[in-house]
Amino acid sequence: MEKLKRNILEQGVVLDHSILRVDRFLNHQIDPILMNEIGKEFSNRFKKDEITKVLTIEASGIAPAIFTAFHLNVPIVFAKKRKSVIQDEHVYQTSVFSYTKKETYQITVECMYIDPLDRVLIIDDFLAAGEAVSGLSRIVDMAKAKLMGVGIVIEKGFQHGGDNLRKTGLKVESLAIIDEMSTDKIIFRENVEERP
Amino acid sequence: MEKLKRNILEQGVVLDHSILRVDRFLNHQIDPILMNEIGKEFSNRFKKDEITKVLTIEASGIAPAIFTAFHLNVPIVFAKKRKSVIQDEHVYQTSVFSYTKKETYQITVECMYIDPLDRVLIIDDFLAAGEAVSGLSRIVDMAKAKLMGVGIVIEKGFQHGGDNLRKTGLKVESLAIIDEMSTDKIIFRENVEERP
Repeated sequence: MEKLKRNILEQGVVLDHSILRVDRFLNHQIDPILMNEIGKEFSNRFKKDEITKVLTIEASGIAPAIFTAFHLNVPIVFAKKRKSVIQDEHVYQTSVFSYTKKETYQITVECMYIDPLDRVLIIDDFLAAGEAVSGLSRIVDMAKAKLMGVGIVIEKGFQHGGDNLRKTGLKVESLAIIDEMSTDKIIFRENVEERP
Repeated sequence: MEKLKRNILEQGVVLDHSILRVDRFLNHQIDPILMNEIGKEFSNRFKKDEITKVLTIEASGIAPAIFTAFHLNVPIVFAKKRKSVIQDEHVYQTSVFSYTKKETYQITVECMYIDPLDRVLIIDDFLAAGEAVSGLSRIVDMAKAKLMGVGIVIEKGFQHGGDNLRKTGLKVESLAIIDEMSTDKIIFRENVEERP
């Protein structure tokens, strides 16, 4: 998605070789016009998959996920992050390790919001090692629903989480895949663009 | 907003006389079509106020706020919740007490995302005592920006936070104001509707 890549090049800040801050348009300040286009793009890429529910994680997954759900005309559910394990039979819960924050957190979804008949599309803002998506996909399994695919705004290709998921046969669509980055250059998969 | 009130009556769950769960369409599962209508409604109510930025708090404020920002064609910024005070001169931070969770948390916004020239509209999913909105409004003050108004999806009128804000001269627009509720009845301000 060219507009997204342009935003990353012009407004993203690479802090080291693995951290990209896109606070200016994606996960602190958000550009709603871009989010709408992102949602439209995901809905096009998954329109044949008869999605019945979009699943994401709070907080920065919500913006791209809700516009995707809007264009697919289905509900969205966001998993909630918790520090501690809770004992509640009405909730699906699983652990996710965050490499960025170097900590494990719990994600929870109320059982009633994913049905065994659901055809689920997972949407998230970032994919690196794939921990968050794997956690969400375990929740889809717990609910005995069908995971139809994964839509990612920015994939860190050099951390291989996306490719590992694709190897399992899962449909993973990323709007921008970064294969290499440094403070002066971001290399997207398929095409190389110099920073302005 | 009639559709919202109908959703509250049909899908909301009153846990006691002060807690209303609307997880089914507002803050766990979200109805994106309703959120779009909510965003359109807020944008109509504030279209003469020349808003330049929408401000909310993660996570459940994001959905109504981003559709409002979309229809107003301005960026949205969401304040992040933290457990602890951080020392960072690039960040505005203030304490908010949550009556629901009985705890104090910190909300933070990077200074660069609110400009002294900004005309800010605060959007949130709930307003009860008004603690979260007051916190956001302190951040607008710290940034020396202008607070133009507050848009709330569901106001708990019986907790008086909204009326207290209105008394200060602030424009507070709530799409549904609940003046009284119990497990078998929800009374909206201006009109009384029995639960189905």
